[in-house]
Amino acid sequence: MRVAILGLGNMGGAIARNILKAGHDLTVWNRSPDKAAALVEGGATLATTPAEAAAQAEIVFTMLADDRAVEAVTFGEDGLLAADPLCLHVGLSTVSLALARRLAEAQGDRYVSAPVFGRPPAAEAAQLSIVAAGAPASIAHAQPVFDAIGQKTFVVGEDAPAANLVKLCGNFMIMSAIEAMGEAMALAAKNGLDKQALFDVLTGTLFGAPVYRNYGPALIEGTYRPAGFPAPLGLKDMNLVAEAATGARVPMPLLGVIRDHLLQAIARDGDDVDWSAIGKAIGDNAGL
Amino acid sequence: MRVAILGLGNMGGAIARNILKAGHDLTVWNRSPDKAAALVEGGATLATTPAEAAAQAEIVFTMLADDRAVEAVTFGEDGLLAADPLCLHVGLSTVSLALARRLAEAQGDRYVSAPVFGRPPAAEAAQLSIVAAGAPASIAHAQPVFDAIGQKTFVVGEDAPAANLVKLCGNFMIMSAIEAMGEAMALAAKNGLDKQALFDVLTGTLFGAPVYRNYGPALIEGTYRPAGFPAPLGLKDMNLVAEAATGARVPMPLLGVIRDHLLQAIARDGDDVDWSAIGKAIGDNAGL
Amino acid sequence: MRVAILGLGNMGGAIARNILKAGHDLTVWNRSPDKAAALVEGGATLATTPAEAAAQAEIVFTMLADDRAVEAVTFGEDGLLAADPLCLHVGLSTVSLALARRLAEAQGDRYVSAPVFGRPPAAEAAQLSIVAAGAPASIAHAQPVFDAIGQKTFVVGEDAPAANLVKLCGNFMIMSAIEAMGEAMALAAKNGLDKQALFDVLTGTLFGAPVYRNYGPALIEGTYRPAGFPAPLGLKDMNLVAEAATGARVPMPLLGVIRDHLLQAIARDGDDVDWSAIGKAIGDNAGL
Amino acid sequence: MRVAILGLGNMGGAIARNILKAGHDLTVWNRSPDKAAALVEGGATLATTPAEAAAQAEIVFTMLADDRAVEAVTFGEDGLLAADPLCLHVGLSTVSLALARRLAEAQGDRYVSAPVFGRPPAAEAAQLSIVAAGAPASIAHAQPVFDAIGQKTFVVGEDAPAANLVKLCGNFMIMSAIEAMGEAMALAAKNGLDKQALFDVLTGTLFGAPVYRNYGPALIEGTYRPAGFPAPLGLKDMNLVAEAATGARVPMPLLGVIRDHLLQAIARDGDDVDWSAIGKAIGDNAGL
Repeated sequence: MRVAILGLGNMGGAIARNILKAGHDLTVWNRSPDKAAALVEGGATLATTPAEAAAQAEIVFTMLADDRAVEAVTFGEDGLLAADPLCLHVGLSTVSLALARRLAEAQGDRYVSAPVFGRPPAAEAAQLSIVAAGAPASIAHAQPVFDAIGQKTFVVGEDAPAANLVKLCGNFMIMSAIEAMGEAMALAAKNGLDKQALFDVLTGTLFGAPVYRNYGPALIEGTYRPAGFPAPLGLKDMNLVAEAATGARVPMPLLGVIRDHLLQAIARDGDDVDWSAIGKAIGDNAGL
Repeated sequence: MRVAILGLGNMGGAIARNILKAGHDLTVWNRSPDKAAALVEGGATLATTPAEAAAQAEIVFTMLADDRAVEAVTFGEDGLLAADPLCLHVGLSTVSLALARRLAEAQGDRYVSAPVFGRPPAAEAAQLSIVAAGAPASIAHAQPVFDAIGQKTFVVGEDAPAANLVKLCGNFMIMSAIEAMGEAMALAAKNGLDKQALFDVLTGTLFGAPVYRNYGPALIEGTYRPAGFPAPLGLKDMNLVAEAATGARVPMPLLGVIRDHLLQAIARDGDDVDWSAIGKAIGDNAGL
Repeated sequence: MRVAILGLGNMGGAIARNILKAGHDLTVWNRSPDKAAALVEGGATLATTPAEAAAQAEIVFTMLADDRAVEAVTFGEDGLLAADPLCLHVGLSTVSLALARRLAEAQGDRYVSAPVFGRPPAAEAAQLSIVAAGAPASIAHAQPVFDAIGQKTFVVGEDAPAANLVKLCGNFMIMSAIEAMGEAMALAAKNGLDKQALFDVLTGTLFGAPVYRNYGPALIEGTYRPAGFPAPLGLKDMNLVAEAATGARVPMPLLGVIRDHLLQAIARDGDDVDWSAIGKAIGDNAGL
Repeated sequence: MRVAILGLGNMGGAIARNILKAGHDLTVWNRSPDKAAALVEGGATLATTPAEAAAQAEIVFTMLADDRAVEAVTFGEDGLLAADPLCLHVGLSTVSLALARRLAEAQGDRYVSAPVFGRPPAAEAAQLSIVAAGAPASIAHAQPVFDAIGQKTFVVGEDAPAANLVKLCGNFMIMSAIEAMGEAMALAAKNGLDKQALFDVLTGTLFGAPVYRNYGPALIEGTYRPAGFPAPLGLKDMNLVAEAATGARVPMPLLGVIRDHLLQAIARDGDDVDWSAIGKAIGDNAGL
């Protein structure tokens, strides 16, 4: 298939490599084109604008940092919507519901939201979990590429923003699990109980899920650098959840707790800590 | 082994049946002795006081409703400490750190804290998870009985209250997971997203643990009666966590959120709802 | 002095009348010009665009609903910045720090932020409290008009956004006082204590300030309609505070509590309740 | 009148001096009798037990540190209830609703709850505010003494615990005002706004009450030692509020925020800081 991908950061780069590996005909674009060098060497074509990339593809994937970047690449000068002919656009980025809505309204059935769960190592291993929403035929069209980059595709509806909402809820749930473990571990530590012993019981009983296994060790060891997912990006995502909650009139007090701890972590420890550093904020407040 | 159990409620009764089934010589006691009838018919001996039960056993287990009951049975008239000779006491109940400390100080190596994870069906099936702390020799002595009633024993230290702390942290973590799912589902529902679809993605990715699988369906269907674990007991446990947090000077804002939702659930929906009814409180507040 | 005012809502209309009453030469503009009729009859001149109004004035005041309206009137087509010559712009509206910053950067010493405390009756009575920040000479220039519309001017610095920050802090403090009274009164009511008796002690001792006296009666009587200041506007302001707190990395958990109660009030009771209806949300949650 | 007072700490000592000054016949008792020396020199009689003090008085006042002390002095060996004949008991201490209830039930009309607002300097100046509840005749009997020690008596009902509830609500309201100012000042400071300028606007407009004037300066200057009212006593009172809220099923999220900040202040800064040190906790969390 003729595929294009816009955005070659840690996630986008790994996804691009897997698309290429699966034998698709790949065009790439990135704001700083140097990131495309290895891919071009591997057979990809470099486009100079999003529109040019899209013009050469049946499907164009976007994997960008935030709303602003997706807006620019889609609606901006030489953006996707300037391509002729227009192709299917699959948005992999974590963006606001408002932007997802705007993308869906502007592109109709030619737009699918498909944000992913998984960090760069999972992306590299083609083990992402993909949450897709959009027109069934459009999702079916993209499925071979989803299969090349992920282990499973969850279809959550025909209205594209639904997938973005699931993604935001998932990130909120991750932070919630970290918050809960962080508070429990602070209580344990101040009572002289070994955090590891607590963790072993938890994961050996009701809490044996990846979210606990992935983040527990950092909380036990207090290791928050280097960041797998930096706290400011976590804050950005929690702000998107808050924006959705405000829009839908949903009080979410646990979300408030998480945001305050992220603000504290960033204020005191800097922009380069992992989002799990809310565990350090919790411990600091207990005088640990 | 000669074993006694004090407290034959839903949990204690099931545990007693499994002790008997494993071939141990069992003495039972309950405040209202009628609950002992079937066990006596099955071969157990009925004692008229805790002290009498303890006098006939190598190990006495207590499985009672709250601190007050455990205090009465241990320190009260004709209580465990009035038995002659004194035997090993294994406390299975969920009690405060303060009481666990007092029990350990009064009984020394003859006391083991061993609260359990699991509801009545798990108790019936001898599938409890046991968290034990105390003198290693004492735990070893009780191990055959633990094997008769549970699937796994986690030893978390030699200081008995450590086991109670782990149990309290576990219940806090359960409530935290329910709170997180409840908020995410309220956000989903008010945005027109199917709660089940959200749940399937969550449990199919990072959140595939029993805690989510056990409580998700009630949140999706809004079914909070009959109560598996009534909200007032959940509140009692969260108050024990708060007492421990206050004692150790540990701010736990998520605990505060949970307690407020439990208070709301009880105030508005009564004492007979399940502790997962915090999900209803969250939804009510969003106007669902 | 030749003065213009843009925005003739409840607040702007009352302010305009007082400017006129003080003998200034007044030009008015409003998006829907019919609101200007009585003022024109009273001697004011009606402008057809913000730029036209500004061109006829030494000082132009803006008193508009939100950031979007102020942006349009300032930076939009036929906006203030299109006037020739440019005059002093005094912003009375409650806007975001980000917009205040942008207004200051675009207009330099020709811009003063001067948000006000006081509701329509205070505006009518020329009893507003004005919080001003900007170049001292510019504030001095506007002082005669401030004197015509308010009872006191507080100068809080030379950097215009400082005044907007004080205004946002003030609104946050108002909501905080309502939240505190609301929680105390719910506790009183559920214990059978007369809310009025509690209120009398509070205002007769440490809490004898207008903020308590103004909002206490609504909480006692449970009267939240008609709205003096509708809950959605209160939410808008609290969101501006949250935006400032996020930008400056300041955890504000009490702000989170307030926002959640505002969301609840709006979700359950509609857009037409007063912002003090968080008191009803608090009572509802207690089962009152 | 023949009056006795039990408890001669900072508050009780000052109250005793004013009772003596007003010409009453005073008997005093304190756990460590050395605190009575100056009073005895000034004409008071020293009793060796609470019962002895009560036996010599028409009215006995108790002003003690906590529930435990009041319980011991009332119900303990040689306690008030052992006096013959029994006299009127006026409880000035800040105690739990549960204890107030028990005191009222044990003593009937002979018990009046009359907790006070005001710190030691106000007690010294006979400027306390007294909140009384109990049988009208009993309150009338005590009124001459109230007049000797306070500036105003608020009668809030005939059920004694009502007065204690008002006192607890008052302390909660004080902490709420400190929390609100603390958050607003942290937001101000991180935006480069002078805290004093903010404070001047607040107290010059809607917030001109003693609670703000009393605590603002400490928050501005960051001075939390020596403690006027130590944080652990503030925490004790907030725990009493929480106990009352739990008992009455009233969610109080702002109370949770305050308690967590008190725990943080004590955990990080020690037991000797003032309860207004929650302002420091708030600032610390913002990285100030």
